[in-house]
Amino acid sequence: MQIQVYAEPAMLRSEGLRGQTTVVIDALRMTSVAITAVDNGCEGVMPVRDVEDARRVARDVGALLGGERNALPIEGFQLSNSPLEYTPQRVQGRRLVLSTSNGTRAILAAQESERLLLGGFINAQAVADTVRDCEALSILCAGTLGRFTLEDVLAAGGIVDRVLRHTPDAMLDDLALAAMRLYRQADGKLQEALRPGRHYQWLVRHGMQADIDYCLQEDCAQAVPERHEGGWFA
Amino acid sequence: MQIQVYAEPAMLRSEGLRGQTTVVIDALRMTSVAITAVDNGCEGVMPVRDVEDARRVARDVGALLGGERNALPIEGFQLSNSPLEYTPQRVQGRRLVLSTSNGTRAILAAQESERLLLGGFINAQAVADTVRDCEALSILCAGTLGRFTLEDVLAAGGIVDRVLRHTPDAMLDDLALAAMRLYRQADGKLQEALRPGRHYQWLVRHGMQADIDYCLQEDCAQAVPERHEGGWFA
Repeated sequence: MQIQVYAEPAMLRSEGLRGQTTVVIDALRMTSVAITAVDNGCEGVMPVRDVEDARRVARDVGALLGGERNALPIEGFQLSNSPLEYTPQRVQGRRLVLSTSNGTRAILAAQESERLLLGGFINAQAVADTVRDCEALSILCAGTLGRFTLEDVLAAGGIVDRVLRHTPDAMLDDLALAAMRLYRQADGKLQEALRPGRHYQWLVRHGMQADIDYCLQEDCAQAVPERHEGGWFA
Repeated sequence: MQIQVYAEPAMLRSEGLRGQTTVVIDALRMTSVAITAVDNGCEGVMPVRDVEDARRVARDVGALLGGERNALPIEGFQLSNSPLEYTPQRVQGRRLVLSTSNGTRAILAAQESERLLLGGFINAQAVADTVRDCEALSILCAGTLGRFTLEDVLAAGGIVDRVLRHTPDAMLDDLALAAMRLYRQADGKLQEALRPGRHYQWLVRHGMQADIDYCLQEDCAQAVPERHEGGWFA
């Protein structure tokens, strides 16, 4: 298996993901939201970039609307970008249209992938199990406003670390190697390792420590949302 | 001091480097070549992207021609991209026009910086001393064909580590933090840390281990080539 990690969508080249199995990570918080929703019985998640388009798609199929702009709730959306809101009571048997800044952009940048999955700390082991037999694995970190973002790269490292347990001869590119080393160096102390990160700090200042605490709980979820017919992730 | 590290030029945004002091790193091998040349008495180094332009500039000012394409020598150039060729006997009192793939591209992408310096493992301490009083430091890694490249990021980490010794309250962005951690984790064993890297491996396969050995000698050079009038680095 070949594993490549991209720090953010601008590092993709046009031919980059064709035929690949790609895992998109926006650990704080968008892919953690989607994973939680599917884990709690949501029937499908559709990432939509534009807020008006999101409203229209949700209306057409009777879906819930969730998301953020600049990490804050969007007017008229039932749900924000806090994974803690995506309880079974709220999402079971429903569809969800999700519009966020960085995560949505990354997912759309990965559209040409053959298989497209969503990952984070909360489903790292489940992702590693799902990609077990693939030949070419790309992990695309969402980043923050086009910048390298520590938590996404460490989550990528957590997945690489778990893949190596069943596929020790996997070939890593330089960022996969760096991500894995950073993850192993953290030695389970993710809060400590991530606290100096800029986006982490921003979320703390905006009162979102509880979301962070949840999103850093490794392997608390089993779902690996995968893109299906029509662009819905389930 | 604020320190930002970019893994490769595509991660810069247009406003990114205006007013900044920027250090460009292509540790294996272009910026190590320029540092070595200046350290050995070369009067000025001009990075030129196009081979024909390089020939013309060198002819106009009577400069030496050095560089590579795909890491291999260029026809009619007196010098390749091996720093070991840039001896005092060859470069003292001469000017040098240098054309390479990744390093030249990164330097040109950083043109709008207020101060523009060249760095590597071989002058990491000298770079840290030179930027001591600056408020905003950007370190731009050249990368390899648009990819995150381990040796450039570790060299950036080596500079960040040295800057923190005199400026312990410097604010690091996420990649500066990751680079510093990777550098410290290597704990002086740079060969071991970098050996699995793709570009490192490519150079080994093409018989360039001696160049690598030289380029990883920390602090063996004192020169910090800086852009002056007309784009010459000295």
